[in-house]
Amino acid sequence: MRSRRSFLQDVSLSAAAISIGSFPKSYNKGRPGRQAESSRILRVAIMGLGSYGTMVAEAMRTCTRAQLTGVISGTPSKMAAWQKTYHLEPENCYNYENYSRIKDNPNIDAVYVITPNALHHDAVLAIAGAGKHVICEKPMSVNVREAQEMIAACQKAGVGLLVGYRMHFEPHTLQVIRMRMNGDLGKILFFQGLSGFAIGDPGQWRLQKKLSGGGALMDIGIYSVNAARYMTGEEPVWVTAQETKTDPVKFPEGIDETIQFEMGFPGGAVASCLSTYAMNHLDKFFLNGEMDFVDMQPSSNYGPIRAHTSGGPVNAPDVTHQTVQMDEMASILLDGKKPLVPVDGLEALRDITIMEAIYKAAATGQRIML
Amino acid sequence: MRSRRSFLQDVSLSAAAISIGSFPKSYNKGRPGRQAESSRILRVAIMGLGSYGTMVAEAMRTCTRAQLTGVISGTPSKMAAWQKTYHLEPENCYNYENYSRIKDNPNIDAVYVITPNALHHDAVLAIAGAGKHVICEKPMSVNVREAQEMIAACQKAGVGLLVGYRMHFEPHTLQVIRMRMNGDLGKILFFQGLSGFAIGDPGQWRLQKKLSGGGALMDIGIYSVNAARYMTGEEPVWVTAQETKTDPVKFPEGIDETIQFEMGFPGGAVASCLSTYAMNHLDKFFLNGEMDFVDMQPSSNYGPIRAHTSGGPVNAPDVTHQTVQMDEMASILLDGKKPLVPVDGLEALRDITIMEAIYKAAATGQRIML
Repeated sequence: MRSRRSFLQDVSLSAAAISIGSFPKSYNKGRPGRQAESSRILRVAIMGLGSYGTMVAEAMRTCTRAQLTGVISGTPSKMAAWQKTYHLEPENCYNYENYSRIKDNPNIDAVYVITPNALHHDAVLAIAGAGKHVICEKPMSVNVREAQEMIAACQKAGVGLLVGYRMHFEPHTLQVIRMRMNGDLGKILFFQGLSGFAIGDPGQWRLQKKLSGGGALMDIGIYSVNAARYMTGEEPVWVTAQETKTDPVKFPEGIDETIQFEMGFPGGAVASCLSTYAMNHLDKFFLNGEMDFVDMQPSSNYGPIRAHTSGGPVNAPDVTHQTVQMDEMASILLDGKKPLVPVDGLEALRDITIMEAIYKAAATGQRIML
Repeated sequence: MRSRRSFLQDVSLSAAAISIGSFPKSYNKGRPGRQAESSRILRVAIMGLGSYGTMVAEAMRTCTRAQLTGVISGTPSKMAAWQKTYHLEPENCYNYENYSRIKDNPNIDAVYVITPNALHHDAVLAIAGAGKHVICEKPMSVNVREAQEMIAACQKAGVGLLVGYRMHFEPHTLQVIRMRMNGDLGKILFFQGLSGFAIGDPGQWRLQKKLSGGGALMDIGIYSVNAARYMTGEEPVWVTAQETKTDPVKFPEGIDETIQFEMGFPGGAVASCLSTYAMNHLDKFFLNGEMDFVDMQPSSNYGPIRAHTSGGPVNAPDVTHQTVQMDEMASILLDGKKPLVPVDGLEALRDITIMEAIYKAAATGQRIML
């Protein structure tokens, strides 16, 4: 039996869901410290209707603050299927020739770019130019120069630029970060990240440098790069790296198969990581502090994530990562909410700067200072 | 109720236990492939009555093939205490001035050298010169030159030279090695070894280069160095290394605090390892193959060792490591038994060669080929 109160809440939510007209150009401005959630809905178009785009769309079905309202796709058959599946209005669906017109569409607040990596840069510049918020899948770009241009373009356009760091919203991950911040682990001494999988189909875009911008490091190693930072709470000051290639046909020039990389942090902590397209069973983080440690395995796949300390499991709810990510990103873009760990362009620029340094370290055999 | 058969077995064992006179100078010679155990007892003197020497002596109480019959010590009070505790004959107890006389003692077959690392070389040469088998704690020596001299001296003297690689007799470890040999893990791709502890008393010999020959790498990192070899079943062809020192007072010149090191193997497998005196919670191995993985934690402390694959725990008995080690070493020295993983001087020389290369890689920043 439902109470009058829950009924009113539902009415309120429904009312909120349709009050979708107001869209703050003043992204994160003039709202210092404001954390309270509004009830506006972030209306999102997805660009790139591949398998991950589909996963995000499915996850958004249960969002309370974000709603899929459009798509950008170069494949008419996919667009038609999505229109039907997700009840999208035809006027919210664009192809790559006409999507600059999205600027005149009042029913789309943000575009989530889920194309191959090397296409992110031009898409983000175009979306910013159309005055829409950008959510960009990671890696945000394939090099530092592109990342800087993307950040500048979004700043100039006054739109938000968020990057698909879904782990920054994952409850076990956040709980571990809070434990570290609270000093529960003591001084942080070591992070180990093992990120990889045995990649299948040799014809996929991830193995084509022109589309991917790189190999395993860009695609999966980035989880260890990024986690080394949010787990230690520090920025690395140096990297070293060693590349191993056993299959130069499957992994041609510019596509790294396996890279071991190491980092040093200002406080004396170090990190040892592995990035690979050549093996499975690799989705593990280990954070070691003076007082306690955290083992995470799985640490960054689509879930459920598991973590434990010397005292036992880290308890946190299992969630659909992309559902929480999109709801939280709505709060960031619409309410100026500050996430515990940033998901903005600067956060992405740091990862890309480190990955460029790792590639340089692997190529030269030298320690690269950051 | 005991059967006549088990009674006869006991009689046979007792008879064997006292037939301790025969001692084969022909160590491992003229007995090709002979694996059957004799029932002779290896009579052992321990040199160096510190905490680990005591642990070995205690473990030997339950040995069936090895027996503590003597000591070599520079501390008369310790010697007196050991004589009482372990019922040692005074004529089997030596100091560092007179222990060359051990050559005339028919009741000591082998000497277990458990002194600080830098003292191993001279002691081993002296013991070999006295015609006794040598068991030497690891690291066998503090550099390659010493290791080569120790091997040559024992060969020349016709005595055995075994090194205290207790993990080579630990049942979980052996089970994992057998699984790898059987192909249960598929092609081996990655080994990760984390070996370390936060060292206490700054005055101990381990932190004095003249006695230890090095820092954490020599003392605890050697577990990861050695395991990288027995876990992958290959010898590394290159190493890289990065040293971090946060406390140059506690860890002076020549005493490494933390070293990350990486290895490459002929088959394309790689290893990422950490050796440290600066943190606890580090006793983990991870072996990743194409088909399955093994996690070990604890992986090399005094036990119990734990290992699991994707299918669950690796079942093996928990044993007192040094008891099994000493019984097995008796079989090696007296019967010519071949262990699954060697524990001889050549095995130690390989580790020491790799550790020298790791130190060189850390000092130069260069990849060192082996």
